[in-house]
Amino acid sequence: MTKTDVSVREVGMRDGLQSISFIMPTTKKHEWAVREAAAGVREIEVASFVPPKLLPQMADGAEVVAQARKIAGLTVAALVPNLKGAERAVEAGAHKLNVVLSVSEGHNRANVRKTVQESLAEFARIVALVRALPAERRPIVCGGLATCFGCTIEGDVPEAQVLDTVERAIATGIDELVLADTVGYGNPAQVRRIFAAAQRIAGALPIAAHFHDTRGLGLANAVAALDTGIRRLDASLGGFGGCPYAPGASGNVDMEDLVFMLESMGMKTGVDLNRLLEVRRFIESVLPTDTFAGAVAVAGLPKNYRPAA
Amino acid sequence: MTKTDVSVREVGMRDGLQSISFIMPTTKKHEWAVREAAAGVREIEVASFVPPKLLPQMADGAEVVAQARKIAGLTVAALVPNLKGAERAVEAGAHKLNVVLSVSEGHNRANVRKTVQESLAEFARIVALVRALPAERRPIVCGGLATCFGCTIEGDVPEAQVLDTVERAIATGIDELVLADTVGYGNPAQVRRIFAAAQRIAGALPIAAHFHDTRGLGLANAVAALDTGIRRLDASLGGFGGCPYAPGASGNVDMEDLVFMLESMGMKTGVDLNRLLEVRRFIESVLPTDTFAGAVAVAGLPKNYRPAA
Repeated sequence: MTKTDVSVREVGMRDGLQSISFIMPTTKKHEWAVREAAAGVREIEVASFVPPKLLPQMADGAEVVAQARKIAGLTVAALVPNLKGAERAVEAGAHKLNVVLSVSEGHNRANVRKTVQESLAEFARIVALVRALPAERRPIVCGGLATCFGCTIEGDVPEAQVLDTVERAIATGIDELVLADTVGYGNPAQVRRIFAAAQRIAGALPIAAHFHDTRGLGLANAVAALDTGIRRLDASLGGFGGCPYAPGASGNVDMEDLVFMLESMGMKTGVDLNRLLEVRRFIESVLPTDTFAGAVAVAGLPKNYRPAA
Repeated sequence: MTKTDVSVREVGMRDGLQSISFIMPTTKKHEWAVREAAAGVREIEVASFVPPKLLPQMADGAEVVAQARKIAGLTVAALVPNLKGAERAVEAGAHKLNVVLSVSEGHNRANVRKTVQESLAEFARIVALVRALPAERRPIVCGGLATCFGCTIEGDVPEAQVLDTVERAIATGIDELVLADTVGYGNPAQVRRIFAAAQRIAGALPIAAHFHDTRGLGLANAVAALDTGIRRLDASLGGFGGCPYAPGASGNVDMEDLVFMLESMGMKTGVDLNRLLEVRRFIESVLPTDTFAGAVAVAGLPKNYRPAA
């Protein structure tokens, strides 16, 4: 495998699929992962270990993880909302557990019915669970902080509160951090301030960025994060992953457009953009009633497109 | 009028309308200009003085300009492809003449059937025409350089060639410059390089940026230009202005999303975003069969949206 400059991570199989009613068959989920890994994407969040009753789309999470583990070179990540979910994800063999909380108390309560303090305690329990495992079965624990750039319930989320939560999350023993603009409120100036400050707190602990394109600023925010030194970016094929409260609104940053931008800027992603566009067409064929975002898929590649050398 | 940090300039009445077959009535064009000026946009390119036979949409250019001149505080700009067009625009009373050439020879030939050298000579003739006018009737001459970031005909446009054309265009005596990513090939790294270098050449002569969102990078490129000190940005209401060669592809940077981004970043545009969104709805009602871009209009403003203070 060649070295990459930026790691682009697919979150559409979780963040996208969780918001649609059509339940994608397990075989199609696997095919998605196989195809996107073959296009060069090296980390995919393939499932969410929420209670199956709450989210039937994710009921096959253990099987999806187990199958995805067979894909050579792929980091198989799974979202885990709590300790129970972490136990299931560990048992299924996920390489990475994405644990989550919302920095905004109102959003965290609505999402997981916990205070932020209680969620941080859950982070610590998940870290303890993982550390008790034999080294070869030990997944990476990645702490995801949602609503870092604003909240649909509380509006502003003070930057000091975000940075305080960054510090407390790191203290729980997680291996990696993701700062998320869950609702698409962030702007490039804010993104630069917060990611720069968070990296000063985190030191060598890696931080990733997760942007939604709800108000069109996803790629501008991605560049702002890159400017501060961030080299791990979440995205989803076809910009999949809308917000259930804003019909027609865009979802995550579109993976094809992100890869196009990064490669055009001379930053290697390891992803073959033409093959990635084929994976998008595959997903469109599986989900023909959904609308996808993304401009490159519509306009085509520039005549002079060259991947980063 | 309050001071603004960034000047956002509407180009949809020209760049957008020229690419649709429905001919907007002159009264509606005027109403568009009146409403958008009332929302705070202070410069609008209202027409193009191409031969009416070539572009029936723009046949009423003189009347549109004459009416728009009555809007207090508005800079009325008009695109002029040649000396003849400049004479008509001057006669109509345009405050600003946007003269254009494409840096790429192939694109310039296809567009205006001239070499770049011949177009530069036309710039000089237009400057001479304007300088011969009495001071109170003298419009600003703004030189627009298209295909600065790539060309659908030639592919790459070498940066040295862009900068050489910048120098030669300035030498013709123009008052302002616009560098345009006419076909949506540009990326933020390239935008930073070219705008930084162009400003070193231009000195005190102002430079504006004109981006198309064809591949989703419009706002990211706008931030990149801002980073180099650019404070004049073109955009169009509803992202109007697609490319006739890429059906369904996005057009200019969406004005509402741009204003949202700038104001959120703390940069004053002078534009009231809620009023701007009303103007968009007006245009949608006039052009019901066209599809518009822009995410803020779909998702709505964030709960904590505040214009720049």
